Amino acid sequence: MPFKTEQKIRNFGGYLLKLSHDSDAVKGRMNINLYLPPQAENAQHETIPVLFWLSGLTCTPDNCADKGFLQPWAAKKGIAIVYPDTSPRQAKIEGDDDSWDFGTGAGFYVDATKDPWKKEYCMQTYVSKELPQQLFEEFKVLNSKRVSISGHSMGGHGALILFLKNPGKYKSVSAFAPICNPINCPWGQKAFVGYFGSVDQDTWKENDATELLGRYKGKLDVLIDVGTGDKFYKQGQLLPENFDETAAHLGIRGPHYKMRFQEEYDHSYYFVSSFAEDHIEYHSQFLF
Amino acid sequence: MPFKTEQKIRNFGGYLLKLSHDSDAVKGRMNINLYLPPQAENAQHETIPVLFWLSGLTCTPDNCADKGFLQPWAAKKGIAIVYPDTSPRQAKIEGDDDSWDFGTGAGFYVDATKDPWKKEYCMQTYVSKELPQQLFEEFKVLNSKRVSISGHSMGGHGALILFLKNPGKYKSVSAFAPICNPINCPWGQKAFVGYFGSVDQDTWKENDATELLGRYKGKLDVLIDVGTGDKFYKQGQLLPENFDETAAHLGIRGPHYKMRFQEEYDHSYYFVSSFAEDHIEYHSQFLF
Repeated sequence: MPFKTEQKIRNFGGYLLKLSHDSDAVKGRMNINLYLPPQAENAQHETIPVLFWLSGLTCTPDNCADKGFLQPWAAKKGIAIVYPDTSPRQAKIEGDDDSWDFGTGAGFYVDATKDPWKKEYCMQTYVSKELPQQLFEEFKVLNSKRVSISGHSMGGHGALILFLKNPGKYKSVSAFAPICNPINCPWGQKAFVGYFGSVDQDTWKENDATELLGRYKGKLDVLIDVGTGDKFYKQGQLLPENFDETAAHLGIRGPHYKMRFQEEYDHSYYFVSSFAEDHIEYHSQFLF
Repeated sequence: MPFKTEQKIRNFGGYLLKLSHDSDAVKGRMNINLYLPPQAENAQHETIPVLFWLSGLTCTPDNCADKGFLQPWAAKKGIAIVYPDTSPRQAKIEGDDDSWDFGTGAGFYVDATKDPWKKEYCMQTYVSKELPQQLFEEFKVLNSKRVSISGHSMGGHGALILFLKNPGKYKSVSAFAPICNPINCPWGQKAFVGYFGSVDQDTWKENDATELLGRYKGKLDVLIDVGTGDKFYKQGQLLPENFDETAAHLGIRGPHYKMRFQEEYDHSYYFVSSFAEDHIEYHSQFLF
């Protein structure tokens, strides 16, 4: 029984479970939110598909569960949603709280290779291996074979690289305002210098969605929304065009490949919630 | 031009406007959120119906705009939503920040009659008269003749008493976990002793939904949702049965009168958002 239920909250006919558990990958206690749709009640084993949601810089498991508005649409479709945290919280590494875009709340969904981060900052292993394993072990109604992934900003980067690095692991991927080419933007460069060091460029590329896309075998289906009023997009932190042009150049856009620019929308959850229904609809095509 | 637009945010195809303006009623600067649905763009004057939303204890105009999820349904129907603040913020009366259930963030939508509160704590006049007047003056697309009101907890109390005290002013009323009988619950008694004093029981009754219901002329239509897992309901702060029994006793329940008890739901925005669609649907029957 690895998970402790801190709160069990009725929401859209299902339950939002606030859970905590011990993680070997990040060497400490982690909080997650799990939304179980109404269909999960008295459901048979392995019947409820799962969407993993990766949040952005500074977020906890709560931000999107509170403000992203994925739950009502997931409740209608019968999809469970997993909201992990964005970094270890108990590492207490010197400097981990000094900036909002590195360290605590900014794990970037990578496995750090550099001291002092490499011991605890292994969010990639945590989110893609250990957490799902523990969840499917304990919540038998979840279907471990029907899993998709999405995320916002840093979490969009996480969703894209996990999908591209693990062919077949996820049925579908989507992202809101994702960091598409971290090795070429300030946020990504700061994080990768910190977690990988500046020398090992191979590891940088293995954690960059646009670079991974260059090596991707087969056609890519993805739904990406970016707001044209997003200040981080304008600052060149997201670089969706680099991703899109690589996909075009390689001619690997699948029939469900969609890169949408949403007029005037910003980077906030007001943007995410506005298109949450589209993304749940998109994933359901692949999950059912 | 009384309103200053602090932020104009794209949301569900419309705009969430974060506004500030000067209020004579509460003698200071007030913040409000105004959601304009997509239909408001290039709409003719007086065409967009309006729902006033009154928030609960400790809230600002942001809580429900962020977490209540009225906007997606209002966007589909073409209804604007006004989110006022819950108290004056600049009165700086000694002790106004001492407790979370009295003073700042706890105006109770009444006009205080007792010093030192009576000068600024006139939220009833602000919310029901001055604010709508200024809004309809400036936002010409809003239809001043098609206005409804709803709210949560303390704001549910506010919605009920404003509807009952002003026949014909609002097309419809609904409430989530409202304080239905403040003169008989700790929250209400503390607030009324503070704002009215303990002697003037008439004023207490004029601001109590269950008492006002006793004097109400005609049939009452209202949609009220209360979660059976709501700890404040269990503590006797809400007393919906008192309101319901009075309505039954007087035989004034209209064809659209609904008091619903929602199994296991709590007092939070997870509860409000779960039934937001029902409430918008309910109000649209009367607004269109």
